[in-house]
Amino acid sequence: MSKSSQAGAVAPRRVGVWLIGARGAISSCVAYGLAGIREGLLEPVGLVSEQSVFRQLPLVDLDALVLGGCDVCRRPMTQSAGELVRGRVLPADLVAAVSSQAASFEARLRPGLLDQTDVGLADLDPEAARLGALGVRQQIEHVQNDLRAFQSEHQLERVIVVHLASTEILHTPSPDWEDLGRLERALDRGVSQPASVLYAYAALSQGHAYINFTPSAGSAIPALMQLARERTVAHCGNDGKTGETLIKTVLAPMFVARNLRVLSWQGYNMLGNRDGEVLADPLHREAKLRSKGDALRSILKDPRLHHQVAIDYVPSLRDWKTAWDFVHFEGFLGAQMSLQFTWQGSDSALAAPLVLDLVRFTELAQRRGEGGVMPHVASFFKAPMGATSHDFYEQYRMLLEYARR
Amino acid sequence: MSKSSQAGAVAPRRVGVWLIGARGAISSCVAYGLAGIREGLLEPVGLVSEQSVFRQLPLVDLDALVLGGCDVCRRPMTQSAGELVRGRVLPADLVAAVSSQAASFEARLRPGLLDQTDVGLADLDPEAARLGALGVRQQIEHVQNDLRAFQSEHQLERVIVVHLASTEILHTPSPDWEDLGRLERALDRGVSQPASVLYAYAALSQGHAYINFTPSAGSAIPALMQLARERTVAHCGNDGKTGETLIKTVLAPMFVARNLRVLSWQGYNMLGNRDGEVLADPLHREAKLRSKGDALRSILKDPRLHHQVAIDYVPSLRDWKTAWDFVHFEGFLGAQMSLQFTWQGSDSALAAPLVLDLVRFTELAQRRGEGGVMPHVASFFKAPMGATSHDFYEQYRMLLEYARR
Amino acid sequence: MSKSSQAGAVAPRRVGVWLIGARGAISSCVAYGLAGIREGLLEPVGLVSEQSVFRQLPLVDLDALVLGGCDVCRRPMTQSAGELVRGRVLPADLVAAVSSQAASFEARLRPGLLDQTDVGLADLDPEAARLGALGVRQQIEHVQNDLRAFQSEHQLERVIVVHLASTEILHTPSPDWEDLGRLERALDRGVSQPASVLYAYAALSQGHAYINFTPSAGSAIPALMQLARERTVAHCGNDGKTGETLIKTVLAPMFVARNLRVLSWQGYNMLGNRDGEVLADPLHREAKLRSKGDALRSILKDPRLHHQVAIDYVPSLRDWKTAWDFVHFEGFLGAQMSLQFTWQGSDSALAAPLVLDLVRFTELAQRRGEGGVMPHVASFFKAPMGATSHDFYEQYRMLLEYARR
Amino acid sequence: MSKSSQAGAVAPRRVGVWLIGARGAISSCVAYGLAGIREGLLEPVGLVSEQSVFRQLPLVDLDALVLGGCDVCRRPMTQSAGELVRGRVLPADLVAAVSSQAASFEARLRPGLLDQTDVGLADLDPEAARLGALGVRQQIEHVQNDLRAFQSEHQLERVIVVHLASTEILHTPSPDWEDLGRLERALDRGVSQPASVLYAYAALSQGHAYINFTPSAGSAIPALMQLARERTVAHCGNDGKTGETLIKTVLAPMFVARNLRVLSWQGYNMLGNRDGEVLADPLHREAKLRSKGDALRSILKDPRLHHQVAIDYVPSLRDWKTAWDFVHFEGFLGAQMSLQFTWQGSDSALAAPLVLDLVRFTELAQRRGEGGVMPHVASFFKAPMGATSHDFYEQYRMLLEYARR
Repeated sequence: MSKSSQAGAVAPRRVGVWLIGARGAISSCVAYGLAGIREGLLEPVGLVSEQSVFRQLPLVDLDALVLGGCDVCRRPMTQSAGELVRGRVLPADLVAAVSSQAASFEARLRPGLLDQTDVGLADLDPEAARLGALGVRQQIEHVQNDLRAFQSEHQLERVIVVHLASTEILHTPSPDWEDLGRLERALDRGVSQPASVLYAYAALSQGHAYINFTPSAGSAIPALMQLARERTVAHCGNDGKTGETLIKTVLAPMFVARNLRVLSWQGYNMLGNRDGEVLADPLHREAKLRSKGDALRSILKDPRLHHQVAIDYVPSLRDWKTAWDFVHFEGFLGAQMSLQFTWQGSDSALAAPLVLDLVRFTELAQRRGEGGVMPHVASFFKAPMGATSHDFYEQYRMLLEYARR
Repeated sequence: MSKSSQAGAVAPRRVGVWLIGARGAISSCVAYGLAGIREGLLEPVGLVSEQSVFRQLPLVDLDALVLGGCDVCRRPMTQSAGELVRGRVLPADLVAAVSSQAASFEARLRPGLLDQTDVGLADLDPEAARLGALGVRQQIEHVQNDLRAFQSEHQLERVIVVHLASTEILHTPSPDWEDLGRLERALDRGVSQPASVLYAYAALSQGHAYINFTPSAGSAIPALMQLARERTVAHCGNDGKTGETLIKTVLAPMFVARNLRVLSWQGYNMLGNRDGEVLADPLHREAKLRSKGDALRSILKDPRLHHQVAIDYVPSLRDWKTAWDFVHFEGFLGAQMSLQFTWQGSDSALAAPLVLDLVRFTELAQRRGEGGVMPHVASFFKAPMGATSHDFYEQYRMLLEYARR
Repeated sequence: MSKSSQAGAVAPRRVGVWLIGARGAISSCVAYGLAGIREGLLEPVGLVSEQSVFRQLPLVDLDALVLGGCDVCRRPMTQSAGELVRGRVLPADLVAAVSSQAASFEARLRPGLLDQTDVGLADLDPEAARLGALGVRQQIEHVQNDLRAFQSEHQLERVIVVHLASTEILHTPSPDWEDLGRLERALDRGVSQPASVLYAYAALSQGHAYINFTPSAGSAIPALMQLARERTVAHCGNDGKTGETLIKTVLAPMFVARNLRVLSWQGYNMLGNRDGEVLADPLHREAKLRSKGDALRSILKDPRLHHQVAIDYVPSLRDWKTAWDFVHFEGFLGAQMSLQFTWQGSDSALAAPLVLDLVRFTELAQRRGEGGVMPHVASFFKAPMGATSHDFYEQYRMLLEYARR
Repeated sequence: MSKSSQAGAVAPRRVGVWLIGARGAISSCVAYGLAGIREGLLEPVGLVSEQSVFRQLPLVDLDALVLGGCDVCRRPMTQSAGELVRGRVLPADLVAAVSSQAASFEARLRPGLLDQTDVGLADLDPEAARLGALGVRQQIEHVQNDLRAFQSEHQLERVIVVHLASTEILHTPSPDWEDLGRLERALDRGVSQPASVLYAYAALSQGHAYINFTPSAGSAIPALMQLARERTVAHCGNDGKTGETLIKTVLAPMFVARNLRVLSWQGYNMLGNRDGEVLADPLHREAKLRSKGDALRSILKDPRLHHQVAIDYVPSLRDWKTAWDFVHFEGFLGAQMSLQFTWQGSDSALAAPLVLDLVRFTELAQRRGEGGVMPHVASFFKAPMGATSHDFYEQYRMLLEYARR
């Protein structure tokens, strides 16, 4: 039983979590991990919200969460789990022990919206392809029907929508995105939109809080920021800060504090999961590199900085993201020094607990009527909406201050 | 001309800096670097106090500093400089350009006190050996005479004493150190003391602020803490945080903030300078490892943590400290991940600017009558006196808050 | 079915393999791996002898091997396997699939000889303790009875004895070891001997070939070298070359070939298995460091070389040996350069296939009447008996030449 | 005085070395290094040919070499040297000590042929631009006039031409290159050719041996291979094996010998010198990656291998090439392991001694009438002409066998 149940008295009875990309690796880790914690098989290691400092917040209990979601593929949950077992992320005995919970979760999954630029997918759900071919208003309606059914069927006080689908291509901001009126008219005209925008519109306009854990556009476009403010819906994003960028935003402020001049910072990332496969496509990679690159420049503020980030698809690594960064810097007397680091972590096992944390912080903001962007969760994101700093500890301090208020 | 000169109006006219270990690598970098900045040949990279955020403090101008000091060896300054040029720390053209300033500095150097446990030293100054054999009261008097002569000859408003000599062996705390009265009586009885304690006593009792940049006992014993308080003398230490420990105290709080469980943290340090040579002796190494190991345990607070730190003497590296750390940690689902880093930096080029920073912050504290330990400079030290945290950014925030007050 | 079965016509029908330390991690990997290959569940990756170049040798078929052995502890096979599954070395489905073969192997295990200097062991077999307290002649007789029973019960044409037990302490060579006569007389007098020497004596004097995969003394003492020669028994060792030393002996000859001067070579090894636990004891570590350190000096031949090897016990790593080496070298113009490498491998999964290879090469030598040491298997060992070079490729070439003869 | 002078009796009196790209970093290191060795200021570290095993070959004495050459830029030698001093490759005192030799070398330099695809160059020699615009036959004639003048003025028994200019773009093999007759006719028709082909044609047709230390086409096209054979001129190439590829071809055969399956091999290279600047251009990089990638595939022979090589231009590194390679491999039981290495070396200090070695081996081949390609120097090249293996030690063994014949 999770420690968080102590705060149960003030939390809502049942909260829905709607995972977009529900058959992917992160969602699988969320589902198996949550079940494992509930069954007392796992300790809540990696869950920020389980630390004692956050006990004073009336966060929703982990036991109160009901998982549902959608996906564009039909890959069975057992297959996703099997790959994560072979990939040494999920323990085999955990998968066996919570198989009935996993089956219940799978029974709640619905077809998702196929993004028009999606790259070659195994096991595509023909129903998702059919949905993706409908008009945009119909697609939105479809999502909203699914959310409505999920909420009523499970008697959920609230539903939190989490975008976990593969990175979309980088879109040039459309003039239609500039304000809500223009977006509405574009939707009326049937102008196609990235799936992430449709999902975010569907969620926010129905009053559901929205978390964008990917670098896709989602709720970050001005029209949807406006929608969230007007409807007082909490939302946050973009792009979970789980690995190399996390370490970068931890280390870089030290060079500033010590007045050491970073000459070059090279980051090489390798990963082999579905995310890596999608990012092997240059159009999709562009969106990711954008959200990764800005953080460093924003912290170091040196226009002479040489900075490159590469992401390569290395299938044999599966879910194990391996990154090597090389920092070349100058100190006193012009002496040139270096720091290198190698980060080896399971992408999904790093992301999944942050999804649960964000669900809890977002649910609380929504419950409290704190609509609009949530600057206090900036430490969870590579490109945080509404944040003034990329410095990890400065961001984290905002979360602590929020908790202490 | 240094940027700091803008604050010249409020700063004292001339401030002396008395370097203990004045012929060593750090002192040489302080001397050549300071001269280079004054001559406009070097930018003040690596000097924390030169950042714009500290402009609001009336720190002493770099131009106002007068360097002097003492050492137990007679190695000529040109030899120390030559080694640092060959070791690729000091630029050859800088050494040539400021040779007259270096000669003036050298002319002010005096014999130091030989610590009884000092390991084999080339170029031992016979005068230092003679001093080391005197009674402790006489040794103190000798140091005080040198300080007095330095101050009057150069018309210094104030003298800051900086301990930069090789690490002494780890001493079991003596009952004589428990309060000032007992220490005075022990000195009266002629009980021998570590040289660092004699220096600190000499400085503090004459009203000179004292900076302990080494892990030696120095002013950190209760009796001298009391002396500093009673005489309202500013002092700080211990052991400059320049490399591996710096990175550790930057990274470790991230694992805490993310609720990731560090299983093992192994740190391997190699260095080839005089510091490394002294630390090759197990008795001397013990003191260093003590100040390095505590920081991590204090931040991670996990009694199960496996933690080892090794320091090896690798002569070919000379002044280039190379450290490799391996962090094995557990995340969500029990997934075991790792972070490794390699740090390659010039030990002396990292330390020297911090010495200048500490001189300026300490001089200001002394000028303002802020006697006793200086918790706001904790970020400069591996084992900061008076500090409540080893977290680098928390420590640095205290410095920023001090500046903003 | 293994590819090697093609050579079945010339190979003996059944060959016994007697594993000393049969309940340890390497033996478990040998047992499960061999069963997995036979069942067609595993490819023979990592088995040198399965390469096409060795097809021309009439090596014993993997199907013909019968495993038996002894140990001083009673840890059940399922427990060893479970640890290796949790430690991500053995796949869980393999363990399930070949459980009956593992049970048969376990049924053949006998109590071993407890070495007098053995460090604290969980699950000590009281019978092993009892044996360890007997006179040396009785201990030898006990081992020989076990071997005789194993051979007759399973109708084995030949038995190969493999020493896989934990590293013993480093013994000063005894005068009793200098020739066979002296050893026999010492045994008659009841002078205690390291267990590895007793095992080797028992095997060789009964005509069984002996493989020493550890740094313990075993058959490497002059008296037993003589015994092997006189009885025409094949034997080889010492200490399997599986990780850091392997890479060292691959890289070091390049520096020689290119006339680059290695200034310093530092090797830091971490491991968390039973081997690591034993090596945490300084007396036992000494033997290991000896066999690791010599290789490099022998290849580089530069008396000025600075070389250190450290082994640390890091329990969280379990079977995953992680090593970091730093090579500091000088090139043309005195330019100082460096090479670092990090090796992360499963100690047992690296060792187990080499054990099977050595069994096959040793069985062939014994069958062909090639008694005494086997210089052609030098590439398998850190401290190869009878070898003239530590250069990995030179050693491997000897194996290729042996195969082509 | 170099040790090689002992073989002086049989060596020719004066041998010319004509460096194409004579003002670049490698040539500067060749010139200053050779002068330093002659003056007894440097040891011949990094010179393969100075090892005792090659004493039995009557290689030309280092004292007998006369350096000349050409370049397309006018950067003064003192500027190149200054950059290498600041970049910590050339020692300042060496540059000062042999300045007159450097000046003599510079006085012998002539304008080179500007390749039509050359990327933006500072200090372009207008005379080189003028030459590059001439017809190809005139360009060849110009080169030959320079070579003739160099040889007669310095009374050289022989001239060796070494191509050290920046990597050209990768050219699709032209049908004109297929045999010498077609090439001659294309030259007659004025069909433009890469500068490296013109240089090689000019040298070989005049009987001068030719070394291609770059990945440019040079003498490797069939027509020029034929020319070298017909005229009995020695030549060799392509692309000096100095860093990451060297280590790759040292390590990769170990995985084969141990039957370990390399799943992925990622190589990330960073460099900041002129070579890096040219390689930042994708067309030029293509040629380099080609010669780097083939070696690994040729050794590992596994079609499933995932292999990527990246080269990035990181200006702050100057001449210090830094490479990180990550090798992901599978061992016994399907266990997945890894090896990573970081190589930090001065590109020019690694290349320069190999240039001198190749001059000596090529001069000997030419003197002995061994015309055509030189398979015995394969170990010096990334893409060796006439070689059957990329395995470094196999290649080096061919050199040892050549020496012993």
